[in-house]
Amino acid sequence: MEETFVPFRGIKNDLHGRLMCYKQDWSGGFRAGFRILAPTTYIFFASAIPVISFGEQLERNTEGALTAVQTLASTAICGIIHSIIGGQPLLILGVAEPTVLMYTFMYNFAKQRPELGHKLFLAWTGWVCVWTAALLFLLAILGACSIINRFTRVAGELFGLLIAMLFMQQAIRGLVDEFRIPARADSKATEFIPSWRFANGMFALVLSFGLLLTGLKSRKARSWRYGAGWIRSLIADYGVPLMVLVWTAVSYAPAGSVPKGIPRRLFSPNPWSPGAYENWTVVKDMLDVPILFIFGAFVPATMIAVLYYFDHSVASQLAQQKEFNLRKPPSFHYDLLLLGFLTLLCGLLGIPPSNGVIPQSPMHTKSLATLKHQLLRNRLVETARESMRMNSSLGQLYGNMQEAYQQMQTPLIHQAPSDGLKELKESTVQLASSMGNIDAPVVDSVFDVEKEIDDLLPVEVKEQRVSNLLQSCMVGGCVAAMPFLKLIPTSVLWGYFAFMAIESLPGNQFWERILLLFTAPSRRFKVLEDYHATFVETVPFKTIATFTLFQTTYLLICFGLTWVPIAGLLFPLMIMLLVPVRQYILPKFFKGVHLQDLDAAEYEEAPAIPFNYPQEGEFGARSTSADAGEVLDEVITRSRGEIRRTCSSRVTSTSATPSRDGMNLQSPRLSLKAYSPRINELRVLHSPSGPSSLGRK
Amino acid sequence: MEETFVPFRGIKNDLHGRLMCYKQDWSGGFRAGFRILAPTTYIFFASAIPVISFGEQLERNTEGALTAVQTLASTAICGIIHSIIGGQPLLILGVAEPTVLMYTFMYNFAKQRPELGHKLFLAWTGWVCVWTAALLFLLAILGACSIINRFTRVAGELFGLLIAMLFMQQAIRGLVDEFRIPARADSKATEFIPSWRFANGMFALVLSFGLLLTGLKSRKARSWRYGAGWIRSLIADYGVPLMVLVWTAVSYAPAGSVPKGIPRRLFSPNPWSPGAYENWTVVKDMLDVPILFIFGAFVPATMIAVLYYFDHSVASQLAQQKEFNLRKPPSFHYDLLLLGFLTLLCGLLGIPPSNGVIPQSPMHTKSLATLKHQLLRNRLVETARESMRMNSSLGQLYGNMQEAYQQMQTPLIHQAPSDGLKELKESTVQLASSMGNIDAPVVDSVFDVEKEIDDLLPVEVKEQRVSNLLQSCMVGGCVAAMPFLKLIPTSVLWGYFAFMAIESLPGNQFWERILLLFTAPSRRFKVLEDYHATFVETVPFKTIATFTLFQTTYLLICFGLTWVPIAGLLFPLMIMLLVPVRQYILPKFFKGVHLQDLDAAEYEEAPAIPFNYPQEGEFGARSTSADAGEVLDEVITRSRGEIRRTCSSRVTSTSATPSRDGMNLQSPRLSLKAYSPRINELRVLHSPSGPSSLGRK
Repeated sequence: MEETFVPFRGIKNDLHGRLMCYKQDWSGGFRAGFRILAPTTYIFFASAIPVISFGEQLERNTEGALTAVQTLASTAICGIIHSIIGGQPLLILGVAEPTVLMYTFMYNFAKQRPELGHKLFLAWTGWVCVWTAALLFLLAILGACSIINRFTRVAGELFGLLIAMLFMQQAIRGLVDEFRIPARADSKATEFIPSWRFANGMFALVLSFGLLLTGLKSRKARSWRYGAGWIRSLIADYGVPLMVLVWTAVSYAPAGSVPKGIPRRLFSPNPWSPGAYENWTVVKDMLDVPILFIFGAFVPATMIAVLYYFDHSVASQLAQQKEFNLRKPPSFHYDLLLLGFLTLLCGLLGIPPSNGVIPQSPMHTKSLATLKHQLLRNRLVETARESMRMNSSLGQLYGNMQEAYQQMQTPLIHQAPSDGLKELKESTVQLASSMGNIDAPVVDSVFDVEKEIDDLLPVEVKEQRVSNLLQSCMVGGCVAAMPFLKLIPTSVLWGYFAFMAIESLPGNQFWERILLLFTAPSRRFKVLEDYHATFVETVPFKTIATFTLFQTTYLLICFGLTWVPIAGLLFPLMIMLLVPVRQYILPKFFKGVHLQDLDAAEYEEAPAIPFNYPQEGEFGARSTSADAGEVLDEVITRSRGEIRRTCSSRVTSTSATPSRDGMNLQSPRLSLKAYSPRINELRVLHSPSGPSSLGRK
Repeated sequence: MEETFVPFRGIKNDLHGRLMCYKQDWSGGFRAGFRILAPTTYIFFASAIPVISFGEQLERNTEGALTAVQTLASTAICGIIHSIIGGQPLLILGVAEPTVLMYTFMYNFAKQRPELGHKLFLAWTGWVCVWTAALLFLLAILGACSIINRFTRVAGELFGLLIAMLFMQQAIRGLVDEFRIPARADSKATEFIPSWRFANGMFALVLSFGLLLTGLKSRKARSWRYGAGWIRSLIADYGVPLMVLVWTAVSYAPAGSVPKGIPRRLFSPNPWSPGAYENWTVVKDMLDVPILFIFGAFVPATMIAVLYYFDHSVASQLAQQKEFNLRKPPSFHYDLLLLGFLTLLCGLLGIPPSNGVIPQSPMHTKSLATLKHQLLRNRLVETARESMRMNSSLGQLYGNMQEAYQQMQTPLIHQAPSDGLKELKESTVQLASSMGNIDAPVVDSVFDVEKEIDDLLPVEVKEQRVSNLLQSCMVGGCVAAMPFLKLIPTSVLWGYFAFMAIESLPGNQFWERILLLFTAPSRRFKVLEDYHATFVETVPFKTIATFTLFQTTYLLICFGLTWVPIAGLLFPLMIMLLVPVRQYILPKFFKGVHLQDLDAAEYEEAPAIPFNYPQEGEFGARSTSADAGEVLDEVITRSRGEIRRTCSSRVTSTSATPSRDGMNLQSPRLSLKAYSPRINELRVLHSPSGPSSLGRK
């Protein structure tokens, strides 16, 4: 993405790019068939549950002016519109915690002014939304999103971790509150005598830890050893919703012996009751707002605009990280423009607006990568089996697989034919010929189809609009299903918040570096094995530690700021401050090569290395003709919700001297790891029952 | 062990064998230093906690005639005597569930007879013990333990799994009871109103699952990635006792807001109160028992004798399984004789007798294998590091390690010099020479010392008497520490029972086969990888399934029998019945080769195979000069409480045809697995940053 501040140019570019793949966005989604339901349900739960919980919070704070019905409605309406005419369909919209805090603040302000009061509160927020929308239009038109380039990994991941901390904080706070009397409740009720309160708290612990632990376990079901493949797939795909059902059922187990309020359940208005929709006609009250307050609304509007501009863009950025190998273009400018329209719409309808949310947006991309992986995998396994039935040689087999792989590629203009499987095929064919059986038919015992294919497949994402549209519709359906939602215990909600916080951690390099600090020195190389995090070998440990400690301190300051009543809302400014810090201050303390390894910034010149050095791909790493080769250099495989990066061949700081044949020596540790399998293999060859007689079959 | 029924011969042989290593039993134990405390504490908890719980059960059932003080005293006294003058010091003694059931039955009988009543109950049990002792003497002298040879793996593992089921049943029953009013309690107390009872139950769930999950996690601490090595070692060694402390502390967290009885804690008499020791003088009442009842005592005595004969021998057998590679001889006959004396002593003291217990005895051996592994490992790592500092070649390095390994071997008469490391050394040296660097100094980057040594070390057990003596003394100390023990919540106990049940499963082939039935077909070969269970490749899956289903049905019948009030006590007879079933009935349904693979029985002729077929080692696999080679053929490594069996090279049923060069083809699946690393390795060589330039260093 180029940095352009020419008015409208960013929006035009975005529209141009996305229109080209608009048809494929739908056809590709529908072609995935019923499998699209797995990421859809997964994201629907991740989207709906916090929105319901924020709705309850809003209801307490605004004395019923806004409820979960309104937050769900906003999420559904904005989601549906965005999924149909939005730019980046990977982005998930929803009512977020900052919006709730902002609306709480505005309610407290309005309540104290006799000119506004409870009655005109929503009309006034309507004006706030009008101003916010105007500011967002301005930002979008002027190309403010261009500076998203300056947001490096450091800033994005810090924000991601901060959101995870806030979710975890909400989970803990919710659990602690289960032991207390709720604020608006009748403290004389049976369920609030000390013994039942204690019982309720303990029950909540059981339910929320039950959901958290089984939820985390179920996400890994695909790699379980027990149970048939389809059961494991089903559990991995739908395990979390299933666990919400299971633990809700468990919460009814002791129903006979406990009073009605134990465990506590969601408290939401009946959407069918009269008066539940008073807000919808708010537009006719807007002119009753005194003129002073109409202009005064500009003050909160600037704060909300800054917040949304930041949140929306970062959520979009995190959903399009380089590791995901996305093929379709981003759409920051246009999406911000659309967000302006959506905010205006919500304001006029008297519902809180939605914006791009973390961690749901990156979770969405991850789940779509899993989907694409499965689709590719099934097709390739089928092709390989077919070839083996026809007694193909290893060479033919890979040829057929290569062909099938090409057919599955998203057909995009400007895109060089992908050669994802080519390199690996070559090395394997080379191996086969060295063993003298290149032309022999491949038999199942020699070629473990499923394993080989898992090793070969790069990360790809099923980029389409169907899952986003469906999940938004399901969120809308929640409004109708409110009587059923009220069956869910609040403690299950807290467990789900903790689950979301933990699910958002893998793939976050900042988090991986924090863990690295606690890793025993002798096991640090395992991080390299598991995450393929090249920085472990290229950057001295002390530098990694200093950098991570700086980032952690910064994170804790941001976290502390969120506790400050109203100034806390502006913590995004703290994160924006990271841009100049990263650009001007950090290079004074860290070597350029190290910063490049830990946090590649596009605007920085790569340090001079006397070698043909492949440039870092574009931000957001789309496979255009220019960088198709480089992107595939870093073949990225994805399994079970985690991102595995294979070691890239780019020149790294400790191995800057090119070796004779143009290959680079990695650090000794890696050589050892690469050497180990050879030892084991020769040992196998030596053992009497080894495969030394393989050729004779 | 030969089958000898000549009176006294078995005892004489046992005494002869054990006396030869008696001095080494002590010196070896003391030489291990403070590290011996790890298995000691581990077994102390596994021994004391059930004994305390059984004591509480006995107190309820005998209206206070016997309490936890008496069960602890019996366990301590018998344990101390057995550890000093007993035969097999790996065997752990304790008051077990069958003894409790038997004493409950006898109390109910005595209470109904006016001639005996509560007063003469203990005196009468004294007579029962006298008769039991006499019967045990007879069994020991006549060599009844010889038929322990006929107890194959099938019987032993079935019994082990049955005990695990009973422990788990106790855990579940205990947890359910936490929701109910205890039998003898004042049902009007505050803590028994419905709300507090429910709260207590939920708290119990939190505490017991907390203990279970953290206990299981802590046992695996050695392989954690985070934390310094010594912390991980400490947690792995002392994690379970530590967790009992932690969760007991947690149980006091809400102390301010709950009544005193929540959560429920151990209920035990103060050992310092007057009257707590009435039982000790029971011997002077014994002559007051009417003569009819003295002879009548013979009836329960026969049942107890059968029970003890069986339990004691099987516990001893499971503690000396073939996989442990024990070097010192067994002592079934002499131990049974000593058990007779111990029973007599306990009877005269008025305390319930102890016998060999499962799963504590095999747990003891396992923990000592971990200890020995660490001692060996530390020594070898040190030697290897030393050699590398001196710039030794790979050949010299292995020479030095071999020497150090020899020095650590238990010096026993009749033992050929062990060549455990030799074979593997040869293959590695061969590898090194093939890579042309046999004489080059070994550098750390090429030779991963710790990993190599972990791969080389066979299972060995630190066979000594110190840990058993120490843990018995600690159990004795519990009597004095009763006021502290009463702080432990009962729910922590139930969690511990579940923990023990789960800890006893790994290494049980029967359990592994049950799991295999639930394993997805495509992942079955993983069982081979992890447990190195050769039967997976040598026996058709259908046969494994049928055999396992038969065994499971038998297990469930035995489990059902334990529920029948008094006949249930005789479930050991059901397990003894397995001997003729295995010997005469099973061979009619299963092929000899398959039975041999699943359950090698010494008395069966190996099926004729036209090949030099190494005999199965002696039962209990001691490394005598005759079978030293064979035992080491099956190099067995041990890690974190699990037994890993490496594939032996013995001829297996599916590969009975010897290949040209005297090596046997394994099934295709294994060939594939052996082949895979080669693929990966060549891929590594091919990648630009691979180790292809290693030789140049």
